[in-house]
This record gives sequence, structure tokens and C-alpha cells, in this order.
Amino acid sequence: MKSNQFQLDQLAQLIHGQPIGQLNYVVSGLASLKQAQSHHIAYVKSEKFLSDAEACKAGILIVTSDVQKQLKNHSNFIVVDNPYLVFSQLTHTFERKITERGIEATAQIHPSAMIGENTYIGHYVVIGENAVIGDNTIIQSHAKIDYGVEVGRDGFIDSHVTITGEAKIGDRVRVHANTVIGGEGFGYVPYQGIWHRIAQLGSVRIGNDVRIGSNCSIDRGALDDTILEDGVIIDNLVQVAHNVTIGSNTAIAAKCGIAGSSVIGKNCILAGACGVSGHIKIADNVTLTGMSMVTGNILEAGTYSSGTGLMDSGHWRRTVVRFRQLADVPLTKLAKQIDHIQSQIESIESTLKSRK
Amino acid sequence: MKSNQFQLDQLAQLIHGQPIGQLNYVVSGLASLKQAQSHHIAYVKSEKFLSDAEACKAGILIVTSDVQKQLKNHSNFIVVDNPYLVFSQLTHTFERKITERGIEATAQIHPSAMIGENTYIGHYVVIGENAVIGDNTIIQSHAKIDYGVEVGRDGFIDSHVTITGEAKIGDRVRVHANTVIGGEGFGYVPYQGIWHRIAQLGSVRIGNDVRIGSNCSIDRGALDDTILEDGVIIDNLVQVAHNVTIGSNTAIAAKCGIAGSSVIGKNCILAGACGVSGHIKIADNVTLTGMSMVTGNILEAGTYSSGTGLMDSGHWRRTVVRFRQLADVPLTKLAKQIDHIQSQIESIESTLKSRK
Amino acid sequence: MKSNQFQLDQLAQLIHGQPIGQLNYVVSGLASLKQAQSHHIAYVKSEKFLSDAEACKAGILIVTSDVQKQLKNHSNFIVVDNPYLVFSQLTHTFERKITERGIEATAQIHPSAMIGENTYIGHYVVIGENAVIGDNTIIQSHAKIDYGVEVGRDGFIDSHVTITGEAKIGDRVRVHANTVIGGEGFGYVPYQGIWHRIAQLGSVRIGNDVRIGSNCSIDRGALDDTILEDGVIIDNLVQVAHNVTIGSNTAIAAKCGIAGSSVIGKNCILAGACGVSGHIKIADNVTLTGMSMVTGNILEAGTYSSGTGLMDSGHWRRTVVRFRQLADVPLTKLAKQIDHIQSQIESIESTLKSRK
Repeated sequence: MKSNQFQLDQLAQLIHGQPIGQLNYVVSGLASLKQAQSHHIAYVKSEKFLSDAEACKAGILIVTSDVQKQLKNHSNFIVVDNPYLVFSQLTHTFERKITERGIEATAQIHPSAMIGENTYIGHYVVIGENAVIGDNTIIQSHAKIDYGVEVGRDGFIDSHVTITGEAKIGDRVRVHANTVIGGEGFGYVPYQGIWHRIAQLGSVRIGNDVRIGSNCSIDRGALDDTILEDGVIIDNLVQVAHNVTIGSNTAIAAKCGIAGSSVIGKNCILAGACGVSGHIKIADNVTLTGMSMVTGNILEAGTYSSGTGLMDSGHWRRTVVRFRQLADVPLTKLAKQIDHIQSQIESIESTLKSRK
Repeated sequence: MKSNQFQLDQLAQLIHGQPIGQLNYVVSGLASLKQAQSHHIAYVKSEKFLSDAEACKAGILIVTSDVQKQLKNHSNFIVVDNPYLVFSQLTHTFERKITERGIEATAQIHPSAMIGENTYIGHYVVIGENAVIGDNTIIQSHAKIDYGVEVGRDGFIDSHVTITGEAKIGDRVRVHANTVIGGEGFGYVPYQGIWHRIAQLGSVRIGNDVRIGSNCSIDRGALDDTILEDGVIIDNLVQVAHNVTIGSNTAIAAKCGIAGSSVIGKNCILAGACGVSGHIKIADNVTLTGMSMVTGNILEAGTYSSGTGLMDSGHWRRTVVRFRQLADVPLTKLAKQIDHIQSQIESIESTLKSRK
Repeated sequence: MKSNQFQLDQLAQLIHGQPIGQLNYVVSGLASLKQAQSHHIAYVKSEKFLSDAEACKAGILIVTSDVQKQLKNHSNFIVVDNPYLVFSQLTHTFERKITERGIEATAQIHPSAMIGENTYIGHYVVIGENAVIGDNTIIQSHAKIDYGVEVGRDGFIDSHVTITGEAKIGDRVRVHANTVIGGEGFGYVPYQGIWHRIAQLGSVRIGNDVRIGSNCSIDRGALDDTILEDGVIIDNLVQVAHNVTIGSNTAIAAKCGIAGSSVIGKNCILAGACGVSGHIKIADNVTLTGMSMVTGNILEAGTYSSGTGLMDSGHWRRTVVRFRQLADVPLTKLAKQIDHIQSQIESIESTLKSRK
């Protein structure tokens, strides 16, 4: 709820909507239907929210034409086709922008590094040999851009991010705080009871318009590269192991883990805390529900799940006892056996009738 | 096991207990029953640990009156009602305190930031515009306190913590190393095959006496705020998504994840690695056992679980095959069918008998 | 794929293999069978990869004698007994080494700290009172080595690592970026509806040749120490709670969590995202498959699993409904009842026959 002042007609023009009501009405922030006050603009996602919209105190509502006609308590609107999409655009108008530009005196930049125009390099940032930072990119305090790393233009790298392993990152990429990109993959050969380290020689390649949340680990490849294609979005605390490939526009929610060398298709959605084993292939357009465990290839688009629902613990304990018995109970055979028994009984009954 | 020197009578006074034995006996550390030596004080949680207590070499034991009467091998005691609680208080006596105060010359503090009395601001800390740090608060090296963030008094912020998104944090809050508070929520609108970013305009509000472990991510809200009420305690590597509310005195163990807009009640306990879906409501006084998956509201207090127990992998593989068959085996119908068959047989048998 | 120039005979000598072909053939990098070009050396793990090897464009192949005899398209080889192990050694030859030595002027080192010979201490590193850094150890930028911490020789500590709690770390230990070692354990006593903090007085002891990935949390003990024995390897985003002991040469994959006071044996393997409850004992030589949930002791070596496989979501929903019914369906009793019914029917049928 940032303080910028906008008139109804200004905002309507900005979002290509139709203004209705008092055109010079001023709002200074976006808010949810619940929290909005008269100095806010809010949006009504669909007719489902009609009653919330009526109760809402927002000064202006972004609505569809259908919704607008049904609202009695409001007089200021911007009418658009897709209020939710328009709302997402408006958030950028009300967002506080980072306006600092230039290189803080405390940043340590190797003489061989190339820093683009109009960047901001924050306090205590360390940029290594041969690193490249594109135009307009913002690197927040304490970030480490190691040897040979390249970050494209219009990027945002938040504080305490570590980018190493000669990672190459595209344009308009956002990396949130304390994430590590290009760290060493977990490659060890067991031999005579000891783990022998495989130095990781691959890198990380990240496309354009990628978003990575906070506290993520995206490892460099062993020999070939770990790859995130254009438009991939990743939430917080996600593990992407060495040599994984993630197809374009795939979304990965918090706490997922993708093990080594797995290939995830385009336009997939992984809900929170899913685990994907190593060397797995997942097709395009696959959705995994939360906490799914993937141990085999998924070759067809669709929605997949695993796990068991929540129960009160008493019920759950009894259920799990039975679950453990399943291995020794031939379920489908029993079902057939019961059908067979049923027909035997009918045959006996008819015998008995015939002998009456 | 820090070295401070205390006499038996001093400690007894400190913890409001009854001293028994050699009142000037000196100990210099707390230790567990197993590891304690003669210069240690240890505690006996309950009668369950009587034999461990007898074998223990501690110079002084903190005990209940009942336990004290049963111990033959010891002569120095402090008798209290709740030894475990008293032990928790004594740890603070033996803890090494951070005594540094003042602002290190290398800290970068924006002129508009307000720093309270008696604080410590460590090396390479960066504090942004309009930030506020309360009295007696300790900010360890490399922390980033971004624009508009407020931290209350008597706080502890460990190294490499990033606090951004104009988060407001209460008094006596402890945030452990490398945690991120106020990072951008994972808000994207899908439109024409592309993810459109929703700039996150909400913030994070954290009450008093909250504890957050290391490597956690607590995201700022989309429009409204993410809220942690007073007394919430959170372990390491926990994800709290945008617009989540966590009720007072709720405890969340390591590796849990709470998805967007969920509301967790007061006095709840989430054991390790639980996952809570988005837009879920959990009542007060709910306990979740480890790795529980919550995909629907929990409206009543109680203990809940999900998942299946551990088995040797051979047994497990057979079990899972049967588990997958469950969908096609009408269990409760089969059970009824068997009862019906049983009664049919009994009827046939009585018919046969009557015709003898 | 780092650029170093090596002749076939040089490499053969380095890895104690038998050179075959053009002895002065020069390669400048290691690559996978798929990506290799003529300036690369690649390895053939086993006969399983024969057709990939034939199609591979590498200038030199590392092979067993058996594999060498079957390859028609190649002429330059190094013949060894264990190509995979030899490959792991060769990665170190082609790895880019960190050659910086000395202490950057921006590092803040307490006068009482002891820094060994031939170390590198990066920009903005902070090293506290009484800390010790062994010979040849590399500490990357922004790392925090807190009061009383000791790191052995030949170590590698990456950027933004926090080591605190007076942790003692052995030789040849690698700690990857943004990991926290020695943070405060999650110890609280509930009393009168409030959580009372137990100050953590134990430390962390890490043996030799240990590897810890990025974004991990290894907490200090409550009274005794958290212990990682020699040769333990840990992937990213792993939680090790206070007072855990992990036996030598145990490997822990990404996203695992080990709760307080659990003891894991030697030579165990935990696949990704396993959870181990507190106060659990796991024997030596135990393997857990991915996402396993361990809530009881594992006293025998072997492979263990939990969870349920992935299904399409429709099938999964029906399965879970049945799973919830299991508690009320006495499976093994039903199976026996069916057998009993079957014998009753047979008896009836024989009665009927005898009366024909």
C-alpha cells in the first residue's frame, strides 16, 4: 500500500480500461477488498466476490462490465476484461522503486569485470574476475558475483546472493535474497568405503525472465550445465541439483527438490514440497499436487499426486497398521473370490429349491 | 559448558530452590547427566531418569523433593518443583553473552535511520533509509536491514540476515543467521502461457518474543501483511509464504512450509517438515505430527497426522502395489458382502438340517 | 570444461592407465559422452554405454579393457580398471583452482584470531575472537567465523557461510555458500502457555573430510555437542538439529532433516528429503529411499522406504478415500473369513452330493 497519488482517469488510461464515476477521484494505494479504505483502489476478481465487493470501502473498483452492473454501493469503477491481470499490472505502478544508481564505494569490483550502464551495485558487493553485469541491473548489498559469472540486463539480485560456478544468467532475471546459484553439485564416487569427490566442471545457464526465490540452491553441472529455460519461476527454499533442466514457463513452488540430471518439461506446475528423483523425465504441461514424490518418468501431460490425506492421529495410527498389512492381503484376488463364492451359493440355493 | 564460577548457595538463590549439601561447592558449567563431571551442575527431569542420575558424576543435581529422597550417591542438591524449567533458566546464566556495544566503523547506516541506545551494530551491516533499531538490540555482521524496516528493543539479528519489505518487528525477537524476512511473495498471474509478476505491496508484521531460526524465508504480503503474532517460535529452513498469519505461541519445527494466505491458530505445534496448502484455516491448539500434509481446513483442536510408516523396501514395494489397487477394491462393500454371504450360508445350513 | 592442455600420454601417466593410440593427442577438457567434442576426453562407465561411446566425438576415451576391444569408431584410449573412479580423479585436474592467497585488506580479523600459512581470507570476511584457521584453508568473501570457532587445514568455506557456536571443524572440510553451522538449537520449555528459551551451551564438532552443501543448518548442541564424524557428506538445504550424531562416511542428500538428539550410524545413505524424528537411533549401513519418514529406531542394516507412489490425481483421490477406510476394515480377518466361508461351502456341497 505505497503512497502514490493517482486519479481515476489516469489509472483507467494506464490500464486501458473504461473509467466510470468521478474521474478526478484520487487514490494512493492498492488494497484487498477486505482491507481497502476510501483512498484505495481494489479489484473484483469475478462474480464470486460480489458480496465482498459490495461491503468493500475502496474508492475505486476494477471490475468486469458484468460485475459493474450488479454493484449498487459503488460509483467509481474502471471496467476491464480481466481484472486480476490488470491488478497484477497496477501493482508495478504502486510498487516502491529502487532508484539508487551507480557503484557504492565499498563494492569490490575486479578490474576485468564489465559493469553495464545505469546499474546499481550496493554496499559490500564483491564482483570477481571477468564477471559481467548488464545494463540497468540492480545488485543489492553483500551479493557475491564470482569469477566468470554473467548477469544480463534489467536484472535484480538481492542481498547475500552467491552466484558462482561461472553461471550465465539472462535478462530481466530476479534472484531473491540468500540464494546460491552455481554451487558445487553433490557428486561423489563411493570406493573402498570412502566418498571420492567429483569436481564439478559444468555451469548453470539461466534464460530470460526467470525468477528465483530466497534461500534456493541451484547447483552447477558435473560436466554439462544445469539449465533453467526462459520464463521459469521458482519460489523459496528450492533445490535444483546438478544437470537438471527445467523447461520454459514452468513454475516451482517452495520447498521442492529436483535431484540430479532430471529433465522437467515446459509449462509444468510443481506445488509445494514436491520431490523429483534423479534421472527422471517429466513431460510438458504436467501438474504435481503438493508434496508429491516422483520416482519414475511422467510421459503424459496431466495432474499427478501422491501421499495420503490428513487424519486425526488415532484414526491414522489404525489406518497405518492396516496399510502395513496390505502387502499380505491379495485385495483384488479377494474381491474375485467373494464374487465366486456368491455364485457358488446361488448354485447351491437353486439346487436346494429344485429338490424341495 | 561455559566457564562461569558459581557456588551451590548462589545458584539456589538464583533459581529460588532449596540448597542441600556443601553450600560453597563451586561449579563452572551445566551438563547433561551423561557428560557431567564434578565441576558441573546437572538436572534430573523426572523419576524416569533416577538410574542415570545415580550414575552421573555432576557436582550438584537439580531435583524435585521426591527424586532427592531416592538418590543415594549424591549429596549436593538444589530442590525445586520443576527441574526442567529451572534448567532452562540456568542456561541463560551459563551462556556466553555478547558484550560488544556500539557501531562498528564499517557498518553503513543511512543518515535517516534511527539506532537506539546500547545497541551493537556489527561489521559490514547495512541499514537503509528510515530503518529503526530499538534499544539494546544486537545486529551481527553482514546483516541487511533494508529501507523502512523496524526492529524493536532487546532483539538479536544474526549474521547474513536480510530484512526487507518494510517489515515491522517487535521486541525481544531473535532471528538466526541467513534468514530472509520480507522477501517478495511468489505471486504471478498466468496469462497467455506466461507468468506475469504481481509486485508485492504488503509487508511482514512480527510481534514480541518471536524466534525465527536460520535459513528461513518469511515473505511479505501481496497487498495485506504476513503476520507472526507474539511468542511464535520457528525452527530452521521454514517457509512462510505471503499473507500467512500464525497465531501467538505457535511452534513450528524445521523444514515446515506454509503456503500463501493460510491462517494458523494459537498454541499450535507443527512437527518437522509439515506442509500446509494455501488458503487453509487451522484452529487453535492443533498439533501436527512430522511430515503431515494439510490440504483442508482443521476446525477442531487435536492431533493430526498423515503419511505412512517406514518399512523395509521389499515389504514397502509390495504394499504400494496393493495401495494402488485400493481405488478399484470397494473395501467396505466387500466387508458387508462377506457378512451377507455368511448369513446366506447359515440359512442354507439350517435348511439342510431341517431336511435331514 | 576448463581449458587446460594435456597430451594422451600425460593423462595416462596421471591416472595410472594404459595409453593407446596417438600419444601426443591433446585435449583441453573433460566432457560427457553426449557433449564431448574432439578436444575432450570422456569416460565410458560400463558396457551399458557402448553405443553412446561409439557415437561420441571425444578425442580420447577412458575405458576398461573389455570396452576398448568392442569399440570400432575410436582409436585413442586410456585403459583402466575403474573408469568412473578415474574420471572423478581427473575432474580435479581440469578444475579451475582458486589461486588467491593472503588476507584481503577488507577482512576484519580479531587480533586474537590465529590464521595459518598460505590461506586466503576474502573480502569482507569477519573472523572473531580466538578463532583459528588452519594452513591452506580458503575462506571466501563475506564469511563469518565467529568467536572461538576453529577450522582445520586445507578447508574451503564459501561465501556468506556463518560459523558460530564455537564450532570445531577438522581438516579438508568443504562448506558451501550460505550455510549456517553452530546456530542456536531449537530448545524451548513450554510453561504456562509460553515457550521458555533454553540457551544452547553445546557446540558442533565436525571431523575431517566432511562436505556440507549450500543453505544447510547444522545447529549447536543444547549441552553436549552436535557431531559429524569423518567423511560425512551432506547436500544442500539439509537440517541437522542439536545433539544429532552422524556416523562416518554417511551421505545425506538434499532437503533431509534430522531432528534433535538422533544418532545415525556409519556408511548410511539418506536419499533426498528424508525426515528423521528426534531421539531416533539408526544402525550402520542403512539406506533410506527418497522422502522416507523415520519415526522409530532402525536397528538393522538394510534399505527402508515410506510414502506411496505417484498416481494420476483422479486415481489418487479414489485411492485415498479407500485408504481412510482401512482403519475400519479388518483386512487380515476378512481374508481368513473368506477362507472359512469357502470351506463351509465345500462342506455344504459335499453334503448335497451325498444326498443326491
